[in-house]
Amino acid sequence: MSSAPIRGVIGYTITPFTAHGALDLEALGRSIERMIDAGVHAIAPLGSTGEGAYLNDSEWEQVVRYSLATIAGRVPTVVSVSDLTTARTVQRARLAAECGATAVMVLPVSYWKLTDAEIVQHYKAIGAAIDIPIMLYNNPGTSGTDLSVEVILRILAEVDNVTMVKESTGDIQRMHRLHTASAGRVAFYNGCNPLTLEALVAGASGWCTAAPNLIPALNLALWQAVQDGALEQARSLFYQQYALLDYITRRGLPSTVKAGLAMTGLVVGAPRLPLQVLEAPEQAHLRRLLSALDVELLAEAKD
Amino acid sequence: MSSAPIRGVIGYTITPFTAHGALDLEALGRSIERMIDAGVHAIAPLGSTGEGAYLNDSEWEQVVRYSLATIAGRVPTVVSVSDLTTARTVQRARLAAECGATAVMVLPVSYWKLTDAEIVQHYKAIGAAIDIPIMLYNNPGTSGTDLSVEVILRILAEVDNVTMVKESTGDIQRMHRLHTASAGRVAFYNGCNPLTLEALVAGASGWCTAAPNLIPALNLALWQAVQDGALEQARSLFYQQYALLDYITRRGLPSTVKAGLAMTGLVVGAPRLPLQVLEAPEQAHLRRLLSALDVELLAEAKD
Amino acid sequence: MSSAPIRGVIGYTITPFTAHGALDLEALGRSIERMIDAGVHAIAPLGSTGEGAYLNDSEWEQVVRYSLATIAGRVPTVVSVSDLTTARTVQRARLAAECGATAVMVLPVSYWKLTDAEIVQHYKAIGAAIDIPIMLYNNPGTSGTDLSVEVILRILAEVDNVTMVKESTGDIQRMHRLHTASAGRVAFYNGCNPLTLEALVAGASGWCTAAPNLIPALNLALWQAVQDGALEQARSLFYQQYALLDYITRRGLPSTVKAGLAMTGLVVGAPRLPLQVLEAPEQAHLRRLLSALDVELLAEAKD
Amino acid sequence: MSSAPIRGVIGYTITPFTAHGALDLEALGRSIERMIDAGVHAIAPLGSTGEGAYLNDSEWEQVVRYSLATIAGRVPTVVSVSDLTTARTVQRARLAAECGATAVMVLPVSYWKLTDAEIVQHYKAIGAAIDIPIMLYNNPGTSGTDLSVEVILRILAEVDNVTMVKESTGDIQRMHRLHTASAGRVAFYNGCNPLTLEALVAGASGWCTAAPNLIPALNLALWQAVQDGALEQARSLFYQQYALLDYITRRGLPSTVKAGLAMTGLVVGAPRLPLQVLEAPEQAHLRRLLSALDVELLAEAKD
Repeated sequence: MSSAPIRGVIGYTITPFTAHGALDLEALGRSIERMIDAGVHAIAPLGSTGEGAYLNDSEWEQVVRYSLATIAGRVPTVVSVSDLTTARTVQRARLAAECGATAVMVLPVSYWKLTDAEIVQHYKAIGAAIDIPIMLYNNPGTSGTDLSVEVILRILAEVDNVTMVKESTGDIQRMHRLHTASAGRVAFYNGCNPLTLEALVAGASGWCTAAPNLIPALNLALWQAVQDGALEQARSLFYQQYALLDYITRRGLPSTVKAGLAMTGLVVGAPRLPLQVLEAPEQAHLRRLLSALDVELLAEAKD
Repeated sequence: MSSAPIRGVIGYTITPFTAHGALDLEALGRSIERMIDAGVHAIAPLGSTGEGAYLNDSEWEQVVRYSLATIAGRVPTVVSVSDLTTARTVQRARLAAECGATAVMVLPVSYWKLTDAEIVQHYKAIGAAIDIPIMLYNNPGTSGTDLSVEVILRILAEVDNVTMVKESTGDIQRMHRLHTASAGRVAFYNGCNPLTLEALVAGASGWCTAAPNLIPALNLALWQAVQDGALEQARSLFYQQYALLDYITRRGLPSTVKAGLAMTGLVVGAPRLPLQVLEAPEQAHLRRLLSALDVELLAEAKD
Repeated sequence: MSSAPIRGVIGYTITPFTAHGALDLEALGRSIERMIDAGVHAIAPLGSTGEGAYLNDSEWEQVVRYSLATIAGRVPTVVSVSDLTTARTVQRARLAAECGATAVMVLPVSYWKLTDAEIVQHYKAIGAAIDIPIMLYNNPGTSGTDLSVEVILRILAEVDNVTMVKESTGDIQRMHRLHTASAGRVAFYNGCNPLTLEALVAGASGWCTAAPNLIPALNLALWQAVQDGALEQARSLFYQQYALLDYITRRGLPSTVKAGLAMTGLVVGAPRLPLQVLEAPEQAHLRRLLSALDVELLAEAKD
Repeated sequence: MSSAPIRGVIGYTITPFTAHGALDLEALGRSIERMIDAGVHAIAPLGSTGEGAYLNDSEWEQVVRYSLATIAGRVPTVVSVSDLTTARTVQRARLAAECGATAVMVLPVSYWKLTDAEIVQHYKAIGAAIDIPIMLYNNPGTSGTDLSVEVILRILAEVDNVTMVKESTGDIQRMHRLHTASAGRVAFYNGCNPLTLEALVAGASGWCTAAPNLIPALNLALWQAVQDGALEQARSLFYQQYALLDYITRRGLPSTVKAGLAMTGLVVGAPRLPLQVLEAPEQAHLRRLLSALDVELLAEAKD
């Protein structure tokens, strides 16, 4: 296992469907090539944006195999393998590792609230099953479980291959506390798009985001400005893309990113029901946001 | 479709596993017989307590078939068919209907937050797929979605076979508003054990609960006291069982009910990981609560 | 100090102002007479509804003297004496006691969050300063401090003359826990109007409410029905007055009760700025609610 | 009225009391001289830290007169004039203006929740009464009212002399939205110490803080590093002082800052009851935090 955690902008893929709801792997391939061409530092298949939770086992396996074969080691990869049961999470983590993933990401999704001991044991079981690094992911908004900084530190201490922490609560204090409690040694990642400027300034090792499907150059420029210590430029780049980052995060990434990709000419289908295609007024709003950032868009469809 | 909704104490089953984690249908059968013998008014397989969310498709199908065959129409049944995708929820609802379920229960489980329109459409799709009644279930603690009273009323208005509402927020005002907004015509059910006295007094048509696995006589007596308008007796019966109701709800139903059943001699195995067997001090606490209610318990195992 | 705590419907007075914002004691007297005539079991001057927090020291003293002189022992009285500082709360409590109050009520209003030790010490200081009973009042919505059941029990144990607890969180579980932790010995009072049916059924010793300014007969009938164990009648009486109870509580008691009193012919002026007179559409809504309960109203003013 | 809002580190004073609880103006003067000597850019008397809410009218007037006379225009001043009633807030604002305050600060403290219209009207009344700038202050943790960004923008639009916004929710998104909604024209200030790095990076015009009573050099160095665009240095300075900033904010500013000042040899007495002197273990913790930052402390008192 490499000891150097991933750094930079980690682009999350969507999972395209055909009009009949089947996987559209060809479109997935095109979306991956777009992000690699644009220069993202890593790619994360099957995350929240990738509707991983809505796929059946067979679909999930097809997507992980196809994604990793397409990326083919050109950039590091982080595969989301979260499931309600420990057994199925382990099974997915093993599959991802076999397919050559650089790392896996694990969100403690829950139905019944988990005790701290149950959460720690869950990560231990996954850690013992694979020998690639694990990115622990905290996002109570989707998982229903809020990992306290104390529990995160305990997992980091007890599970060797948990080496990265993705924080999506939107509370910058979590990052401050991870940083100070570990004397700056924990690699933490920003998972909350509208917090990116602050997370990077506070020392985040990377930015986990679906935005590079739409505006990769702006995302990468923001990352680079902070690395260069160019504070004024970073602030300016952040506020430039803020309205879009805020909107797609608040309104829901699968719906908005899929709609945005279609506007740029890459048809990736609807999100899976009960998620629906973005409504017309929201589409118009998204189109305005993208236009304002000089994204090249197809002319609007006429009825 | 019968227009008379279910009334009374609706007992929720656990799903027993063997030591190796496989389904233990024989034990499931025994737990069902216990509740029917005790006189519960209806039985609900595969709910939250039944770890329905943690089963794979094949296991889920075995449990629904076995449960309904065992109950064999002796009492009405409500099968929980909730899933993240609309397609799989519809598939499960159809299977339950084919197996003879009296009704199905649908919780709008979510990963990505759903818009009101997406939630309504989800219930419409399920309603159109079956011709038995649907119990709408609101429990943000497990589903991540809080259905407002307004959305519930909209679903009731737009989907004919949604005829029952199970409320588990613990906020009695939701029941008041359902009652007043519908001039008393909505059949609502209590899903929050420590709110039972108040929910029944406020007019709930039934009590959805896993407690009858452990103390069915007390549960039924409380129901009956309220039906008889015996307020003093109802209050007394409620406070008598309050500590147990509160504890199993707060600590988690699968872990506590399974532990309690084992104490009474019915071994039903551990909940599925990441959920764990109740820890020793919690077992001791549960044992004290059950003893105080004169539940007959096996002697404690010696090491 | 009497050991028998107050029981029944405790009516909260408003504090009338003239058009110029001065105290209107004559109107206050009339509002008190109305409630006594209607048969309320006790009266509470200077509570939240009475805008006690918005009066200066001199006004506060005039109101307490006038109120207690007017009531003249015809019913028990509970004077709210809460202030940000312990010193001024003690001073007000002493004044109330000197004027003959049956009891005082203390809400732990806060600017800076208080530690548990600070809260307990606050009640100790007040308890030591007077020899009449204290009603502890928990209402985080106005005080900014939520007293846990544990802290309440600690205060009850450490301060002899704290003998009553008014709960206004709206969470019936607080009452259950007070009841069970004290084996039914704590006298608790309902301070959340739309929870009244449930609080009384759960064993509340009384109902603290401003509603008797407007609909005293209905309030008293609900209380009596529960005392008589007449469950059906209690439920029916509760739902009858529910919309009004819910509205005046949600929209704010000083604004709505003052507006309602004016509609019945008792002009009590505006609440004190920044609180404003109820807006016209809200006035119309309130008028409809009162009319539906057969409250006799003046014809609407023409412009 | 000057159109240039205040910029930089705005130091908040404590209000010293003697052992008998009276004002200790001499100690107040010394604390002010310390901050001016250290180079703070402005001083704010009678804020939350200054226990303004716990003073009576006469004390409040003495403190404002003494503070402004002592500062004597050497740095700009912002006097907190917040009160529950509009009338008394106006009266205090006028007094502050007469005494030569550069600006006043207004927190919409509330007992009853205020409607948006009531809040706007409150600021209008104050704005009309004085001709110096107003700093609008949002801090739901102490005021009980959370001003939405929309209401803040409305007040800025409708009240000419509201020219500054102090945000203490700790949610950096509020600042992003103020910035973007006004195209960068609203002067916003950070009132949440552990958010300072991010707030300044996001474009805050200043930092409102009681920390300069204890570590003014570090506070000013952090401000300057961000002004210089020295990102690495800013991050390092921030994390150096983070533990102290976080602690005094979480544990309460009057208690901790007064305790810290005593450790440095400036005795300022206890906070006013119900607030208490910092407990011994907390004193020890604070002492360690200050020592780690090389603050010169008196030897610990022996018993």
